Amino acid sequence: MQTFRTFVQLLLIMTVAPVFSMQAQTATSAQTIRTVLAKQVVDWNRGDLAAFATGYKNSPDILFMGSKISRGYAQMVDTYRKNYSTKEKMGTLSFANLEVQPLDEHFATVTGNFHLERTAAGGGNSDGYFLLVVEKTPDGWKIVRDSTTVLAKKTVQ
Amino acid sequence: MQTFRTFVQLLLIMTVAPVFSMQAQTATSAQTIRTVLAKQVVDWNRGDLAAFATGYKNSPDILFMGSKISRGYAQMVDTYRKNYSTKEKMGTLSFANLEVQPLDEHFATVTGNFHLERTAAGGGNSDGYFLLVVEKTPDGWKIVRDSTTVLAKKTVQ
Repeated sequence: MQTFRTFVQLLLIMTVAPVFSMQAQTATSAQTIRTVLAKQVVDWNRGDLAAFATGYKNSPDILFMGSKISRGYAQMVDTYRKNYSTKEKMGTLSFANLEVQPLDEHFATVTGNFHLERTAAGGGNSDGYFLLVVEKTPDGWKIVRDSTTVLAKKTVQ
Repeated sequence: MQTFRTFVQLLLIMTVAPVFSMQAQTATSAQTIRTVLAKQVVDWNRGDLAAFATGYKNSPDILFMGSKISRGYAQMVDTYRKNYSTKEKMGTLSFANLEVQPLDEHFATVTGNFHLERTAAGGGNSDGYFLLVVEKTPDGWKIVRDSTTVLAKKTVQ
């Protein structure tokens, strides 16, 4: 009887444990991915574009989708440096409604909204939304695809 | 000598073949994914929304990113039926600048531009761009994430 109970317990563990383990792994990944984005916000808000950029995979294959496609880590850093050349132009970034959706154990998507609080001289406030694909690399989770849409500006009062 | 040459040939095949095999597989996947989108265009342009929708994975987990997030196959079909209730509102769809970028053997991203040719009564022309994530499912490659941005309308002359 004792043996049978142990056998059933073992069977239960073998059946249920992988499910919980996978759920735990997914939860941990989602949390780690959120940490990467939270770090990007902190880096941006202290004006450190080089640190912000490390949220992306350092690869020529990463993609940015807008009305035209652009690609590559180096090009991205250049574009950011051109468009956000001063602390005032960078403003204060925040993310909202962040959702992480795993694809498999190596890839996930992240959706959310962004808000950029800026002075009129810095370009005024900016709002929009994004869909990212993130990859689990040897250096941690990194963004490999980025489709960010800037919503039409509201008139500054 | 003959044995050595055979050995070297075998070594070459073992080293190089997997690379070509992977490239061939990637090329085939990209072609198959393009076929899925080409079929969507054909289905759309003959007014068959139900067939068009099968380009998406029939799952409650699929995501559509816009200013707000929406999810699920059933909801997507509903939204399409509401927004494109007549053949005139559907107009004629075409894709341009399609690019397929593999993530791994089960996932890829697709970027491109769309154009919807419509009469003024149908809502006028519409243009935009998209980033999709596609998954290799038992039923073939299917769209699981869709971030489509509609560009601001030009004034109809």
